[in-house]
Amino acid sequence: MKNSHFISIKNFSKKQIEYILKTAEKMEDIIHSGTDIAKNKILGSLFYEPSTRTQMSFSSAMYRLGGNVIGFSDPKTSSKTKGENLTDTIRCVSNYCDIIVIRHPLEGADMLAAENSPVPIISAGCGTKEHPTQALLDLLTIKKEYKDINGLNIGILGDLKYGRTVKSLTYALSLYDCDLNFISPPSLKMNKEVLNYLNEKNIQYKEFKDVMDVINDLDVLYVTRIQKERFPDPTEYLKLKGSYKIDLSTIKNVKESFIIMHPLPRLDEIAYEVDNTKHAKYFKQPYYGLLVRMALISLILGLIE
Amino acid sequence: MKNSHFISIKNFSKKQIEYILKTAEKMEDIIHSGTDIAKNKILGSLFYEPSTRTQMSFSSAMYRLGGNVIGFSDPKTSSKTKGENLTDTIRCVSNYCDIIVIRHPLEGADMLAAENSPVPIISAGCGTKEHPTQALLDLLTIKKEYKDINGLNIGILGDLKYGRTVKSLTYALSLYDCDLNFISPPSLKMNKEVLNYLNEKNIQYKEFKDVMDVINDLDVLYVTRIQKERFPDPTEYLKLKGSYKIDLSTIKNVKESFIIMHPLPRLDEIAYEVDNTKHAKYFKQPYYGLLVRMALISLILGLIE
Amino acid sequence: MKNSHFISIKNFSKKQIEYILKTAEKMEDIIHSGTDIAKNKILGSLFYEPSTRTQMSFSSAMYRLGGNVIGFSDPKTSSKTKGENLTDTIRCVSNYCDIIVIRHPLEGADMLAAENSPVPIISAGCGTKEHPTQALLDLLTIKKEYKDINGLNIGILGDLKYGRTVKSLTYALSLYDCDLNFISPPSLKMNKEVLNYLNEKNIQYKEFKDVMDVINDLDVLYVTRIQKERFPDPTEYLKLKGSYKIDLSTIKNVKESFIIMHPLPRLDEIAYEVDNTKHAKYFKQPYYGLLVRMALISLILGLIE
Repeated sequence: MKNSHFISIKNFSKKQIEYILKTAEKMEDIIHSGTDIAKNKILGSLFYEPSTRTQMSFSSAMYRLGGNVIGFSDPKTSSKTKGENLTDTIRCVSNYCDIIVIRHPLEGADMLAAENSPVPIISAGCGTKEHPTQALLDLLTIKKEYKDINGLNIGILGDLKYGRTVKSLTYALSLYDCDLNFISPPSLKMNKEVLNYLNEKNIQYKEFKDVMDVINDLDVLYVTRIQKERFPDPTEYLKLKGSYKIDLSTIKNVKESFIIMHPLPRLDEIAYEVDNTKHAKYFKQPYYGLLVRMALISLILGLIE
Repeated sequence: MKNSHFISIKNFSKKQIEYILKTAEKMEDIIHSGTDIAKNKILGSLFYEPSTRTQMSFSSAMYRLGGNVIGFSDPKTSSKTKGENLTDTIRCVSNYCDIIVIRHPLEGADMLAAENSPVPIISAGCGTKEHPTQALLDLLTIKKEYKDINGLNIGILGDLKYGRTVKSLTYALSLYDCDLNFISPPSLKMNKEVLNYLNEKNIQYKEFKDVMDVINDLDVLYVTRIQKERFPDPTEYLKLKGSYKIDLSTIKNVKESFIIMHPLPRLDEIAYEVDNTKHAKYFKQPYYGLLVRMALISLILGLIE
Repeated sequence: MKNSHFISIKNFSKKQIEYILKTAEKMEDIIHSGTDIAKNKILGSLFYEPSTRTQMSFSSAMYRLGGNVIGFSDPKTSSKTKGENLTDTIRCVSNYCDIIVIRHPLEGADMLAAENSPVPIISAGCGTKEHPTQALLDLLTIKKEYKDINGLNIGILGDLKYGRTVKSLTYALSLYDCDLNFISPPSLKMNKEVLNYLNEKNIQYKEFKDVMDVINDLDVLYVTRIQKERFPDPTEYLKLKGSYKIDLSTIKNVKESFIIMHPLPRLDEIAYEVDNTKHAKYFKQPYYGLLVRMALISLILGLIE
């Protein structure tokens, strides 16, 4: 993986993904013992769209490895570079660092960056298509809880049309032998591009409107937010919003080992009362995210193996 | 103090405060010799309210110790996290760092953070109640100039009602045997909560409207800004503003050893002509602030002793 | 140079400039081998005017040397310090770092900072007068391409009146024996202060309105942007803008060894089709900028020699 870009889950084989996850697990020791394998290495952190959480996660990963971080993280600063095209920015900034993480509101910005960069590019989510490192951390979370991802019955709930995390996760899960269940309002169903991808690979999936129709069969429920403004019709929103909120009553009859995940930030789609149940795993995900990003940076920079 | 939160001066004994100050003095050597006792440690710096000065002071402290810093420092970036409640942010971010510094416009945000954080929280000032590390650096400044804080006659001037530094300083000074003099317009007097605290502890204080009535008896004058918009009546502001500006004429007959302090930034409440007098100590305070924050981080992370 | 401020090219002798450039060339080895000569040193990066590129370049330089960086880079954050005068900010911040880089919209802010700072100040461009580290990197670029700057025929094109990079570059080139050609619309000619400086030093220069009148004689063309809003008359802009855009037809008959430089960001003043010609050197400049800033920081902090 040395010097590879990391733009889409689809570009990586199951073997490669598994290798990243295995490496991520080893990072736990490194956090405790400390390391400086990335000493003198610099991560360029280009956030054209703010994302405190993801930006801090990547920065923390780089520091935990002993490296440093330059970049910007706020829209005001980055707007100053808007006059310049992204290609020029990448050609310039790549002189200042050894690896670049990019987040951008526009689809394909990560790909364009990769095509023009002499240093490796990691996508931190661009447009509505993918958020590949989130998918890695989601996989690691499931793996840590269940050991084996194969054979699991997994539900993915929320705005499947515009959400990028749910797409990357679906691509990632398609590498395993598990049952996929997409739960969303009809107007926000998983888009055709992803469904076609699953069909071509002969992966089974079901679609649901109501989470209650499937939740008690699930091993994993991945909850994402439905933004009000995505609904073409406010009446539809009012009618449906209750169905996509998880509270104690929703999970009353779930399996013993059932887990709830969420990419965060969570607003009201999971009630606070769920936080203290054994099913809630969404506050463990950021930790796995740190491990995954440490692993990815280490592998791409060739710092390990 | 290892793993303690540092939210209010009131939670610490005189012995503990003295120990922090003693540790701070030792930090001077460390600045010159260099250290990496905080190697591989990460400070999360969450500034929901901008404060260039305090944020840079904490960051510098962490770097001087050999550690690293992640976080945000501008309102635009942090507003993106507003949809999420603070508890969730802390639960997430605490995965990325070993200690968190928080500044927030709302009262009690630091306490709430502490209640929900698996890593120690240091308050960098929240709402109008306290700014505890400022109080520590103020104490250290007085100690450095006078050796002993006991027996001093100390004036605190400005907006005592809304200012947070003056409250933390008062709590801190209440641990010592010194005379307190509060100087402010009647509408901005020290609030009842603090005065009750002093009364309960049987601490003597006097209140003044005019700094000239007390300045020549003082060993220390702590000046803070009075914001025009705090006055309910603009006429009152115009009438009073002159009384709360320190210039050469104000300090003409002060004691030989008299010192003037200020938490900075200073606007026009201390005339520039005062800067070059031997009384001005306000530009030494930021240096003591660095020492104090280095000490606090070291003690809480258990890096020393 | 230890502990010197670096505010204007004019304050340094040719010998000193040459020494910085020679040191910059040595930095290439350090980038590859890694170093921590700046360990425990902190750079204060005060950008009162956003400049992602320059700020990242200085930060990268400091990290490559093994040091750390504190500061701010966005207008919103820095506006909070506006109430305070710059002198106070410098007196405070200089407690937190070992060297300060400042960028400011106002002329002379760098000089004022230097006068009040106990630590060395490097200007990253203030007002419209100078951008001295850009001039150093421009010199290094020419030197790397041509070995000797003496004897070259150099064209400087664009907004010579308001642009700061062109002024610092002119001062820098005046130390060498080369022919200067200023190419600009009449209303944006190089200002009198700079021309007088050249006249006093008996340096030859020519002025042109049309780049085609001189381009085929040039060894170097330094292109800068002409901002539409600088033209007093929009008709004049429309009439002239074509003359200041470089494309393949413009450079059809240039010398074999001819090079094009640009301080970046480039908008449309150089056509993308030029990027892949052997003449284009503007994406090598950021790399030389990194070397120059590493050298400057090392020399001023006394980390080498």
